[in-house]
Amino acid sequence: MEKIQANMDILFNPNSIAVIGASNSPDKLGFHVMNSLTKGGYRGEIIPVNPNSEKVMGYNAFKSISDIKKEIDVAIVVLPANRVPDVFRECADKPVKGVVLITAGFKEIDDPVGVALHEEVALLANRAGIPVVGPNTFGMANFQVDLNASFTPEYSFLKKGDISLVSQSGGISALLGYLGMRMDLGFSKIVGLGNRLNVDFAHMIEYLMNDPDTKVIILYIEGIDEPRGLIEVARKYRGKKPIIAFKSGSARIGDQASMSHTGSIAGRHEIYYGSFRQTGILGTDSMESLLDTAKALAACPFPEGPNIAILSGQAGLGMVACDLCDADGLKIVPFNESTQKKINEILPPLALRTNPVDMGPAWYNSAAIKKIVRTVMGDTNINGIIFQMMFASANRDVVLVLTELLSSYRQQKPVISCILSPPGIWDEQVRSLEQSRSLVNYPTPDRAARAMANLRKYGAMQSG
Amino acid sequence: MEKIQANMDILFNPNSIAVIGASNSPDKLGFHVMNSLTKGGYRGEIIPVNPNSEKVMGYNAFKSISDIKKEIDVAIVVLPANRVPDVFRECADKPVKGVVLITAGFKEIDDPVGVALHEEVALLANRAGIPVVGPNTFGMANFQVDLNASFTPEYSFLKKGDISLVSQSGGISALLGYLGMRMDLGFSKIVGLGNRLNVDFAHMIEYLMNDPDTKVIILYIEGIDEPRGLIEVARKYRGKKPIIAFKSGSARIGDQASMSHTGSIAGRHEIYYGSFRQTGILGTDSMESLLDTAKALAACPFPEGPNIAILSGQAGLGMVACDLCDADGLKIVPFNESTQKKINEILPPLALRTNPVDMGPAWYNSAAIKKIVRTVMGDTNINGIIFQMMFASANRDVVLVLTELLSSYRQQKPVISCILSPPGIWDEQVRSLEQSRSLVNYPTPDRAARAMANLRKYGAMQSG
Repeated sequence: MEKIQANMDILFNPNSIAVIGASNSPDKLGFHVMNSLTKGGYRGEIIPVNPNSEKVMGYNAFKSISDIKKEIDVAIVVLPANRVPDVFRECADKPVKGVVLITAGFKEIDDPVGVALHEEVALLANRAGIPVVGPNTFGMANFQVDLNASFTPEYSFLKKGDISLVSQSGGISALLGYLGMRMDLGFSKIVGLGNRLNVDFAHMIEYLMNDPDTKVIILYIEGIDEPRGLIEVARKYRGKKPIIAFKSGSARIGDQASMSHTGSIAGRHEIYYGSFRQTGILGTDSMESLLDTAKALAACPFPEGPNIAILSGQAGLGMVACDLCDADGLKIVPFNESTQKKINEILPPLALRTNPVDMGPAWYNSAAIKKIVRTVMGDTNINGIIFQMMFASANRDVVLVLTELLSSYRQQKPVISCILSPPGIWDEQVRSLEQSRSLVNYPTPDRAARAMANLRKYGAMQSG
Repeated sequence: MEKIQANMDILFNPNSIAVIGASNSPDKLGFHVMNSLTKGGYRGEIIPVNPNSEKVMGYNAFKSISDIKKEIDVAIVVLPANRVPDVFRECADKPVKGVVLITAGFKEIDDPVGVALHEEVALLANRAGIPVVGPNTFGMANFQVDLNASFTPEYSFLKKGDISLVSQSGGISALLGYLGMRMDLGFSKIVGLGNRLNVDFAHMIEYLMNDPDTKVIILYIEGIDEPRGLIEVARKYRGKKPIIAFKSGSARIGDQASMSHTGSIAGRHEIYYGSFRQTGILGTDSMESLLDTAKALAACPFPEGPNIAILSGQAGLGMVACDLCDADGLKIVPFNESTQKKINEILPPLALRTNPVDMGPAWYNSAAIKKIVRTVMGDTNINGIIFQMMFASANRDVVLVLTELLSSYRQQKPVISCILSPPGIWDEQVRSLEQSRSLVNYPTPDRAARAMANLRKYGAMQSG
């Protein structure tokens, strides 16, 4: 396994890629893989392999990988399963350093032939020290080097960033990728593990923990044959980089689906979440929450304690955030004396001036709001701020004021916001605040409060 | 109260509106109210009242409402609280038929003056039979007649539709409105109740249950002094139109916030949700879920039982939806024999062909997917379908095929979908499927499954 781990870096940063099964026909996955590489802007060499074509998409094609003179770092394989063992023998001889095996029809099918093929290919890959992403995967992408080694060219629309996703399902990878595009999130690597021939969650975590381009790791898990590896590596790197996980398969019928999907029993749900807690992995319970939490963990410092201030331009938002903070382990505590005194000077008695503060009577007065945020930012009782503001014509410039203010406080305490407006208003300012990582914004008080609670949970787990 | 209820229709459909406190200065709410009416395209007469201006925004202004010769249906009041009793006397004399009282500083402030003012104004309004929205409200809107009687002109960006929102918080109204814009949802009426002088949840439900433009009613509740009225009217109209409610104030600190916000104690959370169940109101637990559920209830028939089929283009999505259906009272049951036989003919053994179906091996084959959906639509064991599909280059035309298919099955069984793509791809097709109410789409399997579960819960409550 040492050689496999050593080859991981080449797998994600290859200088040359052979597409075995490359095709000119849009009905074939090999066509879409070629498209992903070329349209994605991959800067290394792309070499199609197809015994029946001289050229694929204008690139000179070879009959087999053995016919290629040049070194090949990575092979992407999209041939039928029964032809894969021969291809792996050639890959071992060449030798290639990594394989993305998209082909399905191995351990996940209800047929001993599939299992036998899986074992044969695994033996060949392990002997040659070739790390294999797949089989039965959509592929993988390393956005940092514009490498889209999947059958979905549109993955390349994703923004570059520092979140990496390791998923047991191509569908969930696509889902999180497309949601990420719509949330303007930046990704470093997305890897579809499929049936995990010899690259499992544990290997990916080992690799990503040492990958300078990855800050937060997301896992989507259906079932693992040997969860011990994952647990050990998570424990080894505890506190180095956040890992957030979603495990599906709580429904009993899920076991059957999982077995058929990627060849593993989903297993006892609670045991997984228990192990997550014990090893410092943050478990979440929805797809949205996976991304929401990753976004906060990538951008914010952890709150040093559970004490949160809620500052809302409209009182109702404060109440909703309050409920969720309370239910999720955060505390809406009194301000220290001098903070409270200053707020009382800024806001009229008409408003709720204690935490959760209703800044309503001042929302046409950006200077007052700025003073409140600054004062609370300096309160030693407070570990984090939830700032909420709905657009109204009369508070048009609040977000601009916030931009100026928060950039000076960047990374001191986490500021999570729920700022929302009609489409096209404030969107650019909020995006710029997020890109400078001065705050992290969500469209509802629930999601904002949940993100803050997860920041705190993760922080507390690392010290606990 | 009879006269008040009789005047409700004029309140929402006035032929003429006086803005008392209209202003040319953007620092005043009276400026933004004038903007909302004019930019929103209100087609009735707009008459500003301001003793210090001859004209407001080009409209002839009057010194007081008594000086106006014409009939005035509705007065929007944005004067300071202490001047409101005199204005109400004039309104009663005129007589106007309804008032939107935006002014704050009544029962919600920690001062007996506020309570006394509230009681004085209530007496005047009740004696004259004038329904009053507010005080301490952002206002209200009736999108069906392009009436935006609020201080937020941008409300008029909302699409017309058949969902009505009654909210105790202006901030939450704005939130749900802006989220609604981003979800492309259509609204009929949005009403900010504020301190509920004489128009409370009960009156609004009575009115909306008989409003032909409203199909689904959303309530955002913080605390009600006399919940009995709400319970009685909900019981009276049980089964006529769905009511969905979110109650904030589960955190103890919320009571204080609610008292200060709209002058009522939030009260015991569980008691509210218990009453909701007993009267056929569907309680939800997040802002997103309020809108997600309203969207489904407005567009879909109820599933006649808990038996759901999950058809996914990618297996992982099916597993996640399965988990949530299972946890939320839905059943993923076997198909009847002939359905299963047909699916086995369409899909290879490689796929999970039983419920939840993994259509993966056929997702480049739209005709096969069409056959599967049609077959399951006809299965008498199945009460609703969750259809899930992530975009990939190879399944580009799936959604087009779906459009053609589902329009013929419209309203037979609920079809909830999780169809997602990179921005700009499929968006138009999905929107058109939603607008024809052939399906209801959500961006994640969790939200799709939750929407189906809520459809079923609501349906079951009406028969139970």
